Amino acid sequence: MTPTFDPKLDLTFERFVDVPPALIWKAWTQPEHLMPWFCPLPWKTIHAEIDLRPGGIFHTVMQSPEGQTFPNIGCYLEVIENERLTWTNALLPGFRPSRLHQDEETGAFFFTATVELFPHGDGGTRYVATVHHEDEAGCEKHRAMGYEQGWGMALEQLVAYVKTW
Amino acid sequence: MTPTFDPKLDLTFERFVDVPPALIWKAWTQPEHLMPWFCPLPWKTIHAEIDLRPGGIFHTVMQSPEGQTFPNIGCYLEVIENERLTWTNALLPGFRPSRLHQDEETGAFFFTATVELFPHGDGGTRYVATVHHEDEAGCEKHRAMGYEQGWGMALEQLVAYVKTW
Repeated sequence: MTPTFDPKLDLTFERFVDVPPALIWKAWTQPEHLMPWFCPLPWKTIHAEIDLRPGGIFHTVMQSPEGQTFPNIGCYLEVIENERLTWTNALLPGFRPSRLHQDEETGAFFFTATVELFPHGDGGTRYVATVHHEDEAGCEKHRAMGYEQGWGMALEQLVAYVKTW
Repeated sequence: MTPTFDPKLDLTFERFVDVPPALIWKAWTQPEHLMPWFCPLPWKTIHAEIDLRPGGIFHTVMQSPEGQTFPNIGCYLEVIENERLTWTNALLPGFRPSRLHQDEETGAFFFTATVELFPHGDGGTRYVATVHHEDEAGCEKHRAMGYEQGWGMALEQLVAYVKTW
């Protein structure tokens, strides 16, 4: 379902790109095709695990240029091929509630993200990525981390990558 | 999907009852048929709201014999008619992460619950209710609240109620 967008709690990102939804879907849902573009360079995605069904694992590990690693683990909530992908880090695989909020040192926050793909023009896509937070603090933290630039760079990398296919 | 059962984190409850899955499903998924049985007496369920799809609201309000009210709000994760119903209080409707964990005064804990219905014998059901927690503390709290007795009494009320149809 489409969650309600709350400008105080949520961030959204929209772009029109000249590759079709099916290629973007493939790049989002297959580990070997996610890793090349998922992190804005010079960061890297060094691990990706995907079980593409509601409750299935979505696990990535990012690596900073200094070699520090940052795991992200969550599960999918909605999987509608070539159209909509929703996942959260508030639930672990199998829908178990996450303990992430107990570990204040990490500065981590819960979110639910949705990527929506709409066919646009001749073989293009309207790409909409929305992230829902539990509170304004989480939303602000995400914004300050560079949500807009981060998703923008990653999407540029994605488009460049799928054009090599 | 079937989550992994962890005896340190999870509670499960199994009964064989002599009413069929379809009637139990109806009693779980329609507000007017949920309210009569959902709380062990002398507690009452004074409000129920159900939007039966992944991400849809599952909201109930329980009332103690002294008149105190206790809201529970969450969303559905899996809706497989007459077979399996999964919901969580870790996500609000539309899959937004819940702030419940921020409010320590309530003593609330996150859980994901699944009710599974298996046809059994001649018009009966094997009824399995499993609740997954983020940690042992949440699991213990739930156990101490009387999980086993609570679900047992509620199920007895459910069976007695649907037999009146």
